[in-house]
Amino acid sequence: MFLQIDNFLSPAEVSTVAALARQVRFVDGRRSNPHNTTKLNTTADPTDPVAQQASQIALAALQRNEQARGFVMPKLIAMPTLCRYVAGMRYGVHTDVAFLPIGPQPLRSDISCTIFINDPATYQGGELVIHLGTETLHIKGKPGTVILYPSTTLHEVAPVTAGERLVFITFIESQIPDQMHRELIYTLDEVRALEGLKMDWNNRTQLEYVIANLQRMWSR
Amino acid sequence: MFLQIDNFLSPAEVSTVAALARQVRFVDGRRSNPHNTTKLNTTADPTDPVAQQASQIALAALQRNEQARGFVMPKLIAMPTLCRYVAGMRYGVHTDVAFLPIGPQPLRSDISCTIFINDPATYQGGELVIHLGTETLHIKGKPGTVILYPSTTLHEVAPVTAGERLVFITFIESQIPDQMHRELIYTLDEVRALEGLKMDWNNRTQLEYVIANLQRMWSR
Amino acid sequence: MFLQIDNFLSPAEVSTVAALARQVRFVDGRRSNPHNTTKLNTTADPTDPVAQQASQIALAALQRNEQARGFVMPKLIAMPTLCRYVAGMRYGVHTDVAFLPIGPQPLRSDISCTIFINDPATYQGGELVIHLGTETLHIKGKPGTVILYPSTTLHEVAPVTAGERLVFITFIESQIPDQMHRELIYTLDEVRALEGLKMDWNNRTQLEYVIANLQRMWSR
Amino acid sequence: MFLQIDNFLSPAEVSTVAALARQVRFVDGRRSNPHNTTKLNTTADPTDPVAQQASQIALAALQRNEQARGFVMPKLIAMPTLCRYVAGMRYGVHTDVAFLPIGPQPLRSDISCTIFINDPATYQGGELVIHLGTETLHIKGKPGTVILYPSTTLHEVAPVTAGERLVFITFIESQIPDQMHRELIYTLDEVRALEGLKMDWNNRTQLEYVIANLQRMWSR
Amino acid sequence: MFLQIDNFLSPAEVSTVAALARQVRFVDGRRSNPHNTTKLNTTADPTDPVAQQASQIALAALQRNEQARGFVMPKLIAMPTLCRYVAGMRYGVHTDVAFLPIGPQPLRSDISCTIFINDPATYQGGELVIHLGTETLHIKGKPGTVILYPSTTLHEVAPVTAGERLVFITFIESQIPDQMHRELIYTLDEVRALEGLKMDWNNRTQLEYVIANLQRMWSR
Amino acid sequence: MFLQIDNFLSPAEVSTVAALARQVRFVDGRRSNPHNTTKLNTTADPTDPVAQQASQIALAALQRNEQARGFVMPKLIAMPTLCRYVAGMRYGVHTDVAFLPIGPQPLRSDISCTIFINDPATYQGGELVIHLGTETLHIKGKPGTVILYPSTTLHEVAPVTAGERLVFITFIESQIPDQMHRELIYTLDEVRALEGLKMDWNNRTQLEYVIANLQRMWSR
Repeated sequence: MFLQIDNFLSPAEVSTVAALARQVRFVDGRRSNPHNTTKLNTTADPTDPVAQQASQIALAALQRNEQARGFVMPKLIAMPTLCRYVAGMRYGVHTDVAFLPIGPQPLRSDISCTIFINDPATYQGGELVIHLGTETLHIKGKPGTVILYPSTTLHEVAPVTAGERLVFITFIESQIPDQMHRELIYTLDEVRALEGLKMDWNNRTQLEYVIANLQRMWSR
Repeated sequence: MFLQIDNFLSPAEVSTVAALARQVRFVDGRRSNPHNTTKLNTTADPTDPVAQQASQIALAALQRNEQARGFVMPKLIAMPTLCRYVAGMRYGVHTDVAFLPIGPQPLRSDISCTIFINDPATYQGGELVIHLGTETLHIKGKPGTVILYPSTTLHEVAPVTAGERLVFITFIESQIPDQMHRELIYTLDEVRALEGLKMDWNNRTQLEYVIANLQRMWSR
Repeated sequence: MFLQIDNFLSPAEVSTVAALARQVRFVDGRRSNPHNTTKLNTTADPTDPVAQQASQIALAALQRNEQARGFVMPKLIAMPTLCRYVAGMRYGVHTDVAFLPIGPQPLRSDISCTIFINDPATYQGGELVIHLGTETLHIKGKPGTVILYPSTTLHEVAPVTAGERLVFITFIESQIPDQMHRELIYTLDEVRALEGLKMDWNNRTQLEYVIANLQRMWSR
Repeated sequence: MFLQIDNFLSPAEVSTVAALARQVRFVDGRRSNPHNTTKLNTTADPTDPVAQQASQIALAALQRNEQARGFVMPKLIAMPTLCRYVAGMRYGVHTDVAFLPIGPQPLRSDISCTIFINDPATYQGGELVIHLGTETLHIKGKPGTVILYPSTTLHEVAPVTAGERLVFITFIESQIPDQMHRELIYTLDEVRALEGLKMDWNNRTQLEYVIANLQRMWSR
Repeated sequence: MFLQIDNFLSPAEVSTVAALARQVRFVDGRRSNPHNTTKLNTTADPTDPVAQQASQIALAALQRNEQARGFVMPKLIAMPTLCRYVAGMRYGVHTDVAFLPIGPQPLRSDISCTIFINDPATYQGGELVIHLGTETLHIKGKPGTVILYPSTTLHEVAPVTAGERLVFITFIESQIPDQMHRELIYTLDEVRALEGLKMDWNNRTQLEYVIANLQRMWSR
Repeated sequence: MFLQIDNFLSPAEVSTVAALARQVRFVDGRRSNPHNTTKLNTTADPTDPVAQQASQIALAALQRNEQARGFVMPKLIAMPTLCRYVAGMRYGVHTDVAFLPIGPQPLRSDISCTIFINDPATYQGGELVIHLGTETLHIKGKPGTVILYPSTTLHEVAPVTAGERLVFITFIESQIPDQMHRELIYTLDEVRALEGLKMDWNNRTQLEYVIANLQRMWSR
């Protein structure tokens, strides 16, 4: 399941990130994946303090947004990385690796995240294309929009043919790793939030009982 | 989880069964389980046409009762058997066998069922005792009452010290074999039945979506 | 995952079906789902011999098409039903029921199927809209095109505003009920089909070994 | 499954706890659950050093008791909390939350625990009532008695109508989160403890082999 | 896990089968698997009445042998097939297919079975070689010996360099498809059979309780 | 599945270990398992600095060897222990315990490991015998050889009748605890390594997609 949220970053945060990005040191994105000949982009040097300042803005948004938290049920969030694609760049069809070596124990990427910074009208191409067998989703968000999608999908960034695509990407390990399980708990929790106060107390308790037991059953 | 329903058999059905029982040929209950020295009861001879007539009454009730059907989600129901315990009889602590050889493919006993026929005031002892570790449930229903309980429990029939305990017992294979799974689906379905018409249509659809997907996921 | 196949029915079959459809007796689609106020369509009367003749054409295609079979891994296929939507009709967001009462044992709907008969240029609206959280897929196939999609999704038929939407729908129970499991086996099987003859024999055997063991592990 | 152990706290420990409780600062129990209008009790302020001293006594008992450890297979034990119910207090039917925010990673509540301090003859009502569908267990232990029960159940504290109910409550995350899995391992381990020394060595080894492999399979 | 049983067929049955085999019509084994260039053997024509007579002898043994039944927990047994390898024949490393089309519903091959007919001294090579990563098992049974092994393994028949290898092969679908699950239930059942009568009745009941619940949990 | 790798320790490392072993303080192996009367060996005192120096050599090999890492997918590796068996010693059939208390959280033993130091020609007996039902594997490696095998098996060290058996043993907790799951991922990863560069890029991506999703699904 997919969750797109507009204004996930505020206009002020978007401006700050865009300004910082002009000073960030970008390096060849293939550094983290040297054998992938379809990957042609640049990513912020994680040791650059300006890049770190930008990343903190994105991380804070992931930690504060209630809807996103309810959707991803985070156990661990990798530090977001700024990525810049200029004309001619792209990232071919790929699957995100299952385990990211971010510390003593790796992070399992259950959910992938892209936050859009630049106005989509200012660059050509650069859609996030998610493949679902013969069908595809094409996503190109407004400044500050986030898209959260299962790391289990095949996806790509379409070639940028003009302008500059500037985004954050990151990866989240969830309390509930299976995407169908996560979706069912999220859906019940939405029903509880929207209908719970209108329900008979006993029925609301029954619904909470199911949610809590699914959380126990499916956490890992 | 346990479901007790009073008047599962109507007073007329109870009377008919009680009358038939007086003509039924009862045989040693250990016939189906010769090595169990704690089993001391009598069961109706399944080839006796009078016993078959009584069993049909109990089977029809299991097939028609909406609440029971929603609770057990039946795939296959074994023909109910009349059991008679007179003073001195009992059935020690045991677990029901997993597979009953009732046809070309065995029936997996997921849910066990007792239907009480005699007035509990007319016999001493004879409670269905269900062991849940150090705690126990004691169940002695009114005429026509059914108790449906997981076949996965240890249980016993306490010694009858006076009078006659007359019950039907049977076993049900469920679409949803795991008892916790079955309980969660049943609970959500009750919430849908009790609150669904008051809900916003979209939220009701979301709830139905979860129920249908849990049914798919957990059926076997 | 989704699979769309063009020319799943041949042009001749499409013509035959379209001709038969003009003689078929259509009834209110809510007959199978009376409480759903968002369902507003007509479906062929399953007792009508003309409808049955049309359905056989669709069923035969599902049984002969190698790609579709590899994708759905069928255990049981429900008889396809002709559906007709004229201007003003639609089918609101819903989830397909988990179990269809088609015989002594119900069919579990794992995969849903729509086969398009009419030229999409001849009617307005009527897209099959599949909801994946905040994202949606819109599918309106050419005459003879099939779309196979997980029954686990929320989906709808957008209102038809002009012309006539004529489709078959049906439901398939799979050997591999979980959609992610089915997708992984299908993907490995495609790799085997496309690369197997180029591989070292031993490596091909290893790949077959994995496929066979996943099939065993995940069948139900 | 349920485990009730008498004298889990020694008479001396019970006396010490009862004495400390008279100096403990109790606060509104709804502090941890402000929206629950059925919760009407008081809980010890976790920052009160006297409360902490009492809690250590309960924690030590959970860590030293062999039978309790074998039953719960603890991975993490939350600090026990003293709760006091005076006349008019109660805690309506509820399910314990799945995750307790006790540190950098939350604790999953698999097993709930109540330790009784006051003599049951000194207060009216206040039973721990555990709902199992239409059946219920009513538990009111002696001073020093512990009851360990699955956090997956719906349960309540019946209204106290006279006297004072003083208990510890806490929550345990288990190596084996599923309650049926935990029960089967515990049962086999009891058979090994009680019968192992009488068994042929090879058969005992076979039993240990099954236990160790179930522990591997079901730990999370 | 593996189970080898000597004298699974009696000497008289072995003689009968050997005599029948001399009249059986054998055909190219690749008939069932035309693309496998490593398969070089002959199999009895299943329409040959003499072959059918031989197969019935093997099937009857599988149905009557208590130890084999306890080990495989059969749901469905495919008709055994006589196979003959003369000098130069072999069957390279392969995995048995997951589903055999033996009727309206396919048989899932959980357990593979070879019954040896000829004296191993009368032919060179022809071992059943089972690969377990870098380790291998080599099995060449006496006349009447059966070997039951998981269909999930990679295995081969080593080249026969002299004499004639005559065996039955067949495939079994089990109530308990996962091989580790089946092994744990089988092991507990052996402990019960060997130690049960010496145990305290209550402990024996506890052991039966675990076995029955594992059977329910793991059957498919 | 089993993986045996020769020259896992280099000849120089083997010599160093053999030299260190002559100075190591060995203690009764039953120290870690006092009730096991079939265990008759000696193990290095873990507090002896010379033993620690030897163990570091074995640990470093486990951390650097690519094939071993791909096979075991390590999450946690226990410090290897030197074991010495002289004539008359042995370790009867046993299963390794599921959880080793090596730190604040125990290590789950998924994979067991033996590294052979002495020349097999210099001692009689002492094979590692792995029981797989009625079949057995007998493993006696060359100096520097490692054998990695599932901790889920029953195994023994056959009696040493002459000479000295010197080995390291250790236990590994895997990202992928189930041995069949681990084997399937390892097999696909080998196919990718051996065939990936010859494949069409898209097919290779599909294979990586399956591997990454199985890793997510089966990690624990």
